[in-house]
Amino acid sequence: MTKISQDRFTRQIHNRVLPVWEHIHHHPFVLGIKDGSLPMERFMYYMKQDYVFLKDYAKLFALGAVKAEDTETIKWFSSLLHETLHTEMDLHRSYCKEIGIGEEELEAERATPINLAYTRYMLTASQQGSLAELISCLLPCMWSYHEIGTMLKREVENLSVHPYGPWIEMYASEEFGSLSQWLKDKLDELAEEKTTRELEGLQNHFLTTSRFEFMFWDMVYYGHEWPV
Amino acid sequence: MTKISQDRFTRQIHNRVLPVWEHIHHHPFVLGIKDGSLPMERFMYYMKQDYVFLKDYAKLFALGAVKAEDTETIKWFSSLLHETLHTEMDLHRSYCKEIGIGEEELEAERATPINLAYTRYMLTASQQGSLAELISCLLPCMWSYHEIGTMLKREVENLSVHPYGPWIEMYASEEFGSLSQWLKDKLDELAEEKTTRELEGLQNHFLTTSRFEFMFWDMVYYGHEWPV
Amino acid sequence: MTKISQDRFTRQIHNRVLPVWEHIHHHPFVLGIKDGSLPMERFMYYMKQDYVFLKDYAKLFALGAVKAEDTETIKWFSSLLHETLHTEMDLHRSYCKEIGIGEEELEAERATPINLAYTRYMLTASQQGSLAELISCLLPCMWSYHEIGTMLKREVENLSVHPYGPWIEMYASEEFGSLSQWLKDKLDELAEEKTTRELEGLQNHFLTTSRFEFMFWDMVYYGHEWPV
Amino acid sequence: MTKISQDRFTRQIHNRVLPVWEHIHHHPFVLGIKDGSLPMERFMYYMKQDYVFLKDYAKLFALGAVKAEDTETIKWFSSLLHETLHTEMDLHRSYCKEIGIGEEELEAERATPINLAYTRYMLTASQQGSLAELISCLLPCMWSYHEIGTMLKREVENLSVHPYGPWIEMYASEEFGSLSQWLKDKLDELAEEKTTRELEGLQNHFLTTSRFEFMFWDMVYYGHEWPV
Repeated sequence: MTKISQDRFTRQIHNRVLPVWEHIHHHPFVLGIKDGSLPMERFMYYMKQDYVFLKDYAKLFALGAVKAEDTETIKWFSSLLHETLHTEMDLHRSYCKEIGIGEEELEAERATPINLAYTRYMLTASQQGSLAELISCLLPCMWSYHEIGTMLKREVENLSVHPYGPWIEMYASEEFGSLSQWLKDKLDELAEEKTTRELEGLQNHFLTTSRFEFMFWDMVYYGHEWPV
Repeated sequence: MTKISQDRFTRQIHNRVLPVWEHIHHHPFVLGIKDGSLPMERFMYYMKQDYVFLKDYAKLFALGAVKAEDTETIKWFSSLLHETLHTEMDLHRSYCKEIGIGEEELEAERATPINLAYTRYMLTASQQGSLAELISCLLPCMWSYHEIGTMLKREVENLSVHPYGPWIEMYASEEFGSLSQWLKDKLDELAEEKTTRELEGLQNHFLTTSRFEFMFWDMVYYGHEWPV
Repeated sequence: MTKISQDRFTRQIHNRVLPVWEHIHHHPFVLGIKDGSLPMERFMYYMKQDYVFLKDYAKLFALGAVKAEDTETIKWFSSLLHETLHTEMDLHRSYCKEIGIGEEELEAERATPINLAYTRYMLTASQQGSLAELISCLLPCMWSYHEIGTMLKREVENLSVHPYGPWIEMYASEEFGSLSQWLKDKLDELAEEKTTRELEGLQNHFLTTSRFEFMFWDMVYYGHEWPV
Repeated sequence: MTKISQDRFTRQIHNRVLPVWEHIHHHPFVLGIKDGSLPMERFMYYMKQDYVFLKDYAKLFALGAVKAEDTETIKWFSSLLHETLHTEMDLHRSYCKEIGIGEEELEAERATPINLAYTRYMLTASQQGSLAELISCLLPCMWSYHEIGTMLKREVENLSVHPYGPWIEMYASEEFGSLSQWLKDKLDELAEEKTTRELEGLQNHFLTTSRFEFMFWDMVYYGHEWPV
């Protein structure tokens, strides 16, 4: 059993998927949020699809609590679940409310093929696999959102009057960042006890969900729906 | 598809298992809590086994969030998970701390055969079955604890100086009662859409975990451990 | 609880998705198999992706055995699992062997996004849902393949010299048809005990996986890979 | 990450649980089978409880097929599933048929608390854990049965007229032994890639299910049923 260097496993896999993440950071949807040129209508389409996404994403944290062995880790996943259902989804509900989309309409929204592909990939891996597999699947979303939020907050002037200001503020926030950081630290800790073969599996999950993350932005930008 | 009357399904199954619950309510362990005659040493053995139990019991709420379809229900299970990990397990941690049992010792405690039998029965049914099956499995524990807490609070004078006062207070509390009530209401609601055959399955889960509930009290009273 | 007519539930949902299935039956890939004009290279790309697909599809039958309650049903799913791993995947192995693709290469093949989307959708629904949900997810694949096989066998002359003859023969075979028929009968039987809301859920699974079935043919025809 | 010596991991854990297995090998039920003194009525009670057990035990093989990554391993679990449902459960059906117990009565049999405790422990670990955890849970049953069968076949004269001859023949058979051997080899192979902490987890599963194995013999011998 040989091992690849495990110092900061998350940094290694981050480097590995950098080209994909650069496509994400420069996606026209993200750039459109930054300069405010993204039509609100398109943003609301994203908000609705993302609401559906988050309902499934939250379930990954619940599965984290099921897979965890010690009380401390179970508590963390419980907090992540709570924050997603309240703080994060409240943002969506409040954006939607402003333009007259109620909770019922949000609940009734149906996932597009890419939305399903992404969440079902993570759910299957989390049901069947280890806690490390679960985290490596869900990390690209939280991590890249915090990167995007931080980047946009730095580059945008006068967030308080920016149409997407509350969105940027939330994903740039320290609270959101610290949850994402805990997941990274946990994955680094778990990675220390994995073999090369297992680490390759984790890296593969990280790459696959990074790609789905890109495809999700693409989907909400171009409006990819069912072909038939 | 014939249906049995579904008005208050939970009342029906409660009636069905009454003889088992009466054994629980009059168990020497419960009576020993009431009159304070239960040796603290035995209570602490129970606290430690119950701590191990609750760690798995909490996972049932996490699985509830995974099985639930609407955001409202997901949020409720998230709250139940949070309350169990914090309010309820804090009681255990504080009792243990008082007599010098730290969190590490609590974490290291191993489940007895009956403890395992009970939690694994619920976990298996919850992984494989419907949300209604999950609730019908975990309900006897919460419901009977609230009944016992309420009964003891009514019958015990001067709870503030009673050695098991904080325990009684917590399980008699309105907060605990309202969580248990939500589960009952939810099960009644879900039962409305079930066939007779499915209702029989739910009733069977309710009976089986009521029996395990009795056996758990018996186990902590007599100290049933592995025979080999 | 109102119920929609349940006579032949599978016929109802078949009618509901007919437009999707017509797109499948007239897909250029299927037509290319029929008249033999499909380049062998493209067929082999399909064989490899389908091999990866079948490895996951087989797991649905295993999950069927886990979810089933009676020995008879467990045995059927065990047979479906066995047939998929042997008869069906042997066809793929033998086609591949002929043109020099060994089992190792087959094992190493990686799923495309649509391949993953399709299998992960079914796996998630099967892990979390009922046996009826599991069958309604996996039925479009088996059922439509038997329809296509039967149609092509009827329309193609001289199957023995047709490049895709063995493929057509297998999916048109009585053995394959009887397994598909058992699944239909089982779903009809289970549907008799479901409420309208549950039947809508089953129909939705059937529609979603019919759509993924179309997208799978599209994917192997046009070679849709990861965009980044 | 330190590692304990992994040569023949299964031999190590076998040595570790030897005292438990000796209790099994000398259990009055097993001795009663050997000298034929066990009343047929008691044997039939066991046959019925074991039939219920095997229906759940078979599901562990199905879950093995779900957790396995390569086609070869999936095929093996499919074979184990098939053999259990057919060869092994046929023995039970045929014993029962001889004394007038039909399949319906067998299907209707309900598990005792220990029967549930044992199967639910294995099912939960197999749903939540790795393939190695799954195997370490189910191995004591198959392995100890083959040891008992082999031991009894060696010690009993004239098996053809022994009342429990067919039972002894089956568990002593080479076919049964080779399935058990494959599981041992697989676990040894998987153990090579595990850390000390993970190996301790596997050993703990092996010990726990060995103990449940003993308790199962005790249960069928003394007829332990629900206390309330």
